[in-house]
Amino acid sequence: MNPEEKFNLIKRNTAEIVTEAEFKKLLKDKKQPAVYCGWSITGKPHVGYFLPILKLADFLKAGFKVKLLLADLHGALDKTPWELLAKRYDYYLNTIPLMFKCIGSDTKNLKIVKGSDFQLSADYSFDLLKLSTMSTIHDSKKASSDVVKQDENPKLSGLIYPLMQALDEEYLDVDVQYGGLDQRKIMMFAREHLPKMKYPKRIEVMGPLISGLAEGGKMSASIPHSKICLLDTPEQITKKLNLAFCPEGQVEENGVLALMKYVIMVLKEDNGKEFIVERPAKFGGAVKYKTYQELEKDYAAKKLHPQDLKKSLAEELTKLLEPIRKAMKEKEKLVKEAYP
Amino acid sequence: MNPEEKFNLIKRNTAEIVTEAEFKKLLKDKKQPAVYCGWSITGKPHVGYFLPILKLADFLKAGFKVKLLLADLHGALDKTPWELLAKRYDYYLNTIPLMFKCIGSDTKNLKIVKGSDFQLSADYSFDLLKLSTMSTIHDSKKASSDVVKQDENPKLSGLIYPLMQALDEEYLDVDVQYGGLDQRKIMMFAREHLPKMKYPKRIEVMGPLISGLAEGGKMSASIPHSKICLLDTPEQITKKLNLAFCPEGQVEENGVLALMKYVIMVLKEDNGKEFIVERPAKFGGAVKYKTYQELEKDYAAKKLHPQDLKKSLAEELTKLLEPIRKAMKEKEKLVKEAYP
Repeated sequence: MNPEEKFNLIKRNTAEIVTEAEFKKLLKDKKQPAVYCGWSITGKPHVGYFLPILKLADFLKAGFKVKLLLADLHGALDKTPWELLAKRYDYYLNTIPLMFKCIGSDTKNLKIVKGSDFQLSADYSFDLLKLSTMSTIHDSKKASSDVVKQDENPKLSGLIYPLMQALDEEYLDVDVQYGGLDQRKIMMFAREHLPKMKYPKRIEVMGPLISGLAEGGKMSASIPHSKICLLDTPEQITKKLNLAFCPEGQVEENGVLALMKYVIMVLKEDNGKEFIVERPAKFGGAVKYKTYQELEKDYAAKKLHPQDLKKSLAEELTKLLEPIRKAMKEKEKLVKEAYP
Repeated sequence: MNPEEKFNLIKRNTAEIVTEAEFKKLLKDKKQPAVYCGWSITGKPHVGYFLPILKLADFLKAGFKVKLLLADLHGALDKTPWELLAKRYDYYLNTIPLMFKCIGSDTKNLKIVKGSDFQLSADYSFDLLKLSTMSTIHDSKKASSDVVKQDENPKLSGLIYPLMQALDEEYLDVDVQYGGLDQRKIMMFAREHLPKMKYPKRIEVMGPLISGLAEGGKMSASIPHSKICLLDTPEQITKKLNLAFCPEGQVEENGVLALMKYVIMVLKEDNGKEFIVERPAKFGGAVKYKTYQELEKDYAAKKLHPQDLKKSLAEELTKLLEPIRKAMKEKEKLVKEAYP
């Protein structure tokens, strides 16, 4: 892959790159750059996580070293109970790598890193205190406002959160951070503040926010009915999709279509396969889609009914999640302890 | 010394003990309790520091283990420039122990501890993050308001400061913290928050705030003309005292009398000596004081003139500081580098 091909592959399904010029330069200058994506250990991982997983797979294809940060301490700073933290970390550690398996990604250059393994070192702690003398309360509050759960009487932890995320870029020794668009303010905080510490600012690649299955709001690990969890049974998947907000002909703010666009159709296109909707002949018969664009066009024109789409999507997700559900059957105790 | 004698010795020249009942119980139950007093590494130490030094000497006499924390990181959190921190720490480390020597204290049970030697450990850093999830921004701000330099656009470091001071009580393994009355909010924050971490709350002993030599305000390391520094020459001492705010007959808010009360007369009384003011016969001739109370009475009645008092005090301070000035002559380079 040449630098331009790498750039186009990674830019696909992103919302913003800060800056594209820096990113192009990196791809040209460095043979094996490194990227990290951090997940704060909070609610149950859900199928929306396939969007970043697929993007990290793109980074892997483009020859990057990929570091996946399972940020246990960040989870606790954002209200994961301290006494559940170790179990929830185990839950993430057991499920997330399986997601790469589900999508058939080559994970030779993927490394999973536990936050507390390096964030409690003397150097890191020193830098955190140092950075706190260079960060105003105002800027820290603003940086965390779209990420940390907001509260009437907010805790100090929410202000420390963005400082640690900035330092993670340095301590994980990466060139790029990838995250959702909700991370934008934290990422910009990092770009502004790392140079004050004499550390280079990093390139920030942001993915789109995926709509939840409930009306309004994003697909969030903290809103139970907005999402299909990795361990949901086929029945739960079908039920949640049946209840999902998915008005006929409406393309925007439609969580079902978002899953089609950012997960299912990416997989289909990358593997040269088609998404098939089986329908009785009287409703038009089976229809096949090679690209999301084709599917969206039909949906917008009301040629594809939500109920038919949901049924086929349920089958796809059931198949996709099968290896995770199967592997995690041996971990029933952990599942219960992590999310009692 | 029996527990009551210990209690009375320590209570002398304090402003508040939280709580006296807990403190009496401690003195009764524990053979060798431990106390700590922390000094944030900031401006040049001054003669006002003899007040806490004398109190720590009282703790030593009462059989306590005394830990003197030279809090370098706290200094940086309160705006000591990071690049000067190591030198300023050295300055404190070289001068403070000499103060105990000046007053003839037995320092067998005194231990000097450097903040960064334990405040960057993994356990401490973990606890700091944990405590930040249990501390509201509001409470942290309030706790630090009398100690941390206030600012229009305050830094996050000022909010972390009180959390670390709370943890210091635990990590220094002490029963008591001693500090100035300006530490009250931080101490109360520690008492409220340590139990949330399953750590015991400590007894807080507070000394009075000593008036500065300038009109209004306390004697502060950060206000240059409010204080006589440990290394001031006899000429500087005389000059600063001559300029000092010391209205005839006024006992309150009088920094000169404060030094008499909390430093000079404590030393005189403890050593069974007298404070002598030499005067020409026409102004009343020489007068001797065994206690501060006698001196204050004469001063209030305008029987002791500020100029005569200042002259005698200048001689006393010059004598007191002589060993420090002498020892630090070999450290001229350090002195210049620490306070360029």
